[in-house]
Amino acid sequence: YESSGYAEGLADGKRIGVVEGRELGCEHGFDIGKDLGFYKGWAQEWLRAAEAHPELVSERARKKLQAIQDAVNAVPTANSEGAHFAERIKDIQLKFKTVSAMLGVGAGAELPTNSLGSTAARIVGNNVLKLPDFDDTVKIWVYEEIVGRKKLTEIINTQHENVKYLPGHKLPENVVAVADATEVVKDATHIVVVIPHQFIQHLLDTIHGSVLPNAQAISLIKGIGISNQGMTTMTQIIHRTLAIPVSSLSGANIANEIAEEKYCETTIGCSDPDEAIVWRSLFNASYFQVNCVSDVLGVEFCGALKNIVAVGAGFIDGLGLGNNTKAAIIRIGFLEMRRLAMHISGAHIQDSTFMESCGMADVITTCYGGRNRRLAEEFVKTGKSMSQLERELLNGQKLQGYLTAGEVHSYIDSCGVNDHFPLFTNIYEICYKGKPPRTIFDGLNVDFSRDTLTPSRGS
Amino acid sequence: YESSGYAEGLADGKRIGVVEGRELGCEHGFDIGKDLGFYKGWAQEWLRAAEAHPELVSERARKKLQAIQDAVNAVPTANSEGAHFAERIKDIQLKFKTVSAMLGVGAGAELPTNSLGSTAARIVGNNVLKLPDFDDTVKIWVYEEIVGRKKLTEIINTQHENVKYLPGHKLPENVVAVADATEVVKDATHIVVVIPHQFIQHLLDTIHGSVLPNAQAISLIKGIGISNQGMTTMTQIIHRTLAIPVSSLSGANIANEIAEEKYCETTIGCSDPDEAIVWRSLFNASYFQVNCVSDVLGVEFCGALKNIVAVGAGFIDGLGLGNNTKAAIIRIGFLEMRRLAMHISGAHIQDSTFMESCGMADVITTCYGGRNRRLAEEFVKTGKSMSQLERELLNGQKLQGYLTAGEVHSYIDSCGVNDHFPLFTNIYEICYKGKPPRTIFDGLNVDFSRDTLTPSRGS
Repeated sequence: YESSGYAEGLADGKRIGVVEGRELGCEHGFDIGKDLGFYKGWAQEWLRAAEAHPELVSERARKKLQAIQDAVNAVPTANSEGAHFAERIKDIQLKFKTVSAMLGVGAGAELPTNSLGSTAARIVGNNVLKLPDFDDTVKIWVYEEIVGRKKLTEIINTQHENVKYLPGHKLPENVVAVADATEVVKDATHIVVVIPHQFIQHLLDTIHGSVLPNAQAISLIKGIGISNQGMTTMTQIIHRTLAIPVSSLSGANIANEIAEEKYCETTIGCSDPDEAIVWRSLFNASYFQVNCVSDVLGVEFCGALKNIVAVGAGFIDGLGLGNNTKAAIIRIGFLEMRRLAMHISGAHIQDSTFMESCGMADVITTCYGGRNRRLAEEFVKTGKSMSQLERELLNGQKLQGYLTAGEVHSYIDSCGVNDHFPLFTNIYEICYKGKPPRTIFDGLNVDFSRDTLTPSRGS
Repeated sequence: YESSGYAEGLADGKRIGVVEGRELGCEHGFDIGKDLGFYKGWAQEWLRAAEAHPELVSERARKKLQAIQDAVNAVPTANSEGAHFAERIKDIQLKFKTVSAMLGVGAGAELPTNSLGSTAARIVGNNVLKLPDFDDTVKIWVYEEIVGRKKLTEIINTQHENVKYLPGHKLPENVVAVADATEVVKDATHIVVVIPHQFIQHLLDTIHGSVLPNAQAISLIKGIGISNQGMTTMTQIIHRTLAIPVSSLSGANIANEIAEEKYCETTIGCSDPDEAIVWRSLFNASYFQVNCVSDVLGVEFCGALKNIVAVGAGFIDGLGLGNNTKAAIIRIGFLEMRRLAMHISGAHIQDSTFMESCGMADVITTCYGGRNRRLAEEFVKTGKSMSQLERELLNGQKLQGYLTAGEVHSYIDSCGVNDHFPLFTNIYEICYKGKPPRTIFDGLNVDFSRDTLTPSRGS
């Protein structure tokens, strides 16, 4: 069937041309022969056009087209090499298909992940234009809402700006907003998940049937879920529903600063070294330096736990103490983060991950900027409860660091290891038990260099 | 000779009394028998006085006297136990002798070490009052100068305030300022050295002959010396001249914040675990938490190298970049600090030292506060040269981070390992070679997790 499909597809591709052919090919999907032919025909048409009207097709685009044609030609038409064949097809798909970044743009609330989503779309959108292996279009999922009489998707697709969540920063024109999440993921080989973690499970259930079996996902979500089964990270939750490999991205990445192209770093945790290179190529920019590690979980733990430390740093600011004190809290908080991650996931976590941007740098930036710090400062200065501040300043949304402090406390309490986490315990008791903020220093003089705490469930 | 000396000393001590006896005993020094007798006589006189006039001698002082008498009585007079004997004597000396903290108070220039010196004197002064093993008086060396028609020593000894270098903060009354450095150290078992590192060698040469052979020193000085022989730290310089054990103290310790008793941490590097406990007892306070490590050199490297990173952080502030960028520079700077220390001193340095207050916390506090950061910010904003800024803002004194950046560069350049220190190299070239501050980001994307640099002279 390969040979006949090949000829059929070649004819189809030539006749229908670029727009329809692509639609047809995509919709009929995984008929291998047809796809192959389509790719070849599509590339051939454009290469011919490039020859006739060189002003229409850039040198870079021509190289891309040639690469696709070469890849198709390199696939043997004989049936005998079935195993290799699937791989080759996958490679061509990778080169061709849309990298549809599913960038969640929230549920009407002013979440930092929204601006982070738009920021990520901006970087990925610019990068795919330079990557011959990726289609130029990046689809982003936008929770549809009406902004000044217009649909947000329409605004983004005409004005190329997310006026609600990242105003003042143009998105590249190849970033296309789509309201239907299944439509976004259906052709995507690389799915970027950045949505408030409260909404993740519902979204996963929605897209579940539409995700390609050979797709890869990456999570930019901060947060840890606690259940009776223990702790669950976002990559674990995504993998459980979609059954595809999931990487993690986290770093010292306050969204607005990235949007202004101020130099920063980030960390990608990806267990497959080849895929790590692909993810890096999608996210790396001169002002957004990506380091890759193989430790997916460690990157996530850092992203979630640093928010507790930021709450502590906010208390220090609220108390009017100085840089020495804040540095002490950051240091101790950082060591408790590492200690907790090691306790929970023992041999799965690499110590060196904590020295990456997702660890040390993110703790610092979150303790000097960010809203966890800000609300905690208000908490001390105003004497209002955290829930009241959430209502007044966050539209009733939950503050990440506050939530995580509670979740982490229930975990370390159930393990009976509170003594090993004096700072996390103090922050919890100040947030939830009405203890005065000054008690944050109680019992902090633990010697972490002689740590006797062992992992709860190692290797 | 022990027995005869004992009787002789007992008589001397009784007759001459406290002041002369002490002088005599001290001056004649290490005649063991005399010393022992002196201590016993001295204690006996005072205990008798305490009985006659209980209002003159506090309960705490009485207990101290009793402890000394008990210790003397416990020493056997027979010759046979020579080895133990020396230890017992040392113990009694420790209990008795003045802890004279030699706290350098500068050379007429507004050095942060000056306020740090006064701050340290304040903490040690308060602590010795609680420590039965130490005399109540802490002597500090003050470079004599006239402040408003009065000698600075007189002001300190009457107003109990270093009006020039730590105004607004009272010193404990048991801290006594002395203009003669040899007088300060001559009875001291524990010497605290905190003086700008440019003046250290001259001071060491001055006090050399007056230091007790069983004295211990601790260095609070930041800075590394570079010579043809390679790199030399302050503890090495002090040890070379005085031939006594030298520990190091460094941490996230901006002096004014400590003086305001804002919570912070510090790190003591001391190779002898027993002495570490003693040093800790002299410096630890509820608002000044001391952690001890055995890694003397590592603590010093952190204290010196962090100033280069602070210069980099100041450039970031000058460029108007944000928290993400600063956190990235701090992270990379921290890793280059660790890498450089490992390269220079390999097996002598402990990795964990960098996670102490002297490492991670001090880098953070110095990159947000401190004058290295401030001058570097001015450097970018005004376009003036670093030497011009030193003249204008520091009375022509050299900026520590600027100096160290130059010294470190000459070292890594001579080793040919510049590629492994892109940030340090960029900072050097911006400071000394006129490169634009924006070039600080050039080539920073080094993967530190796969470090192939080996120590230059290991173990």
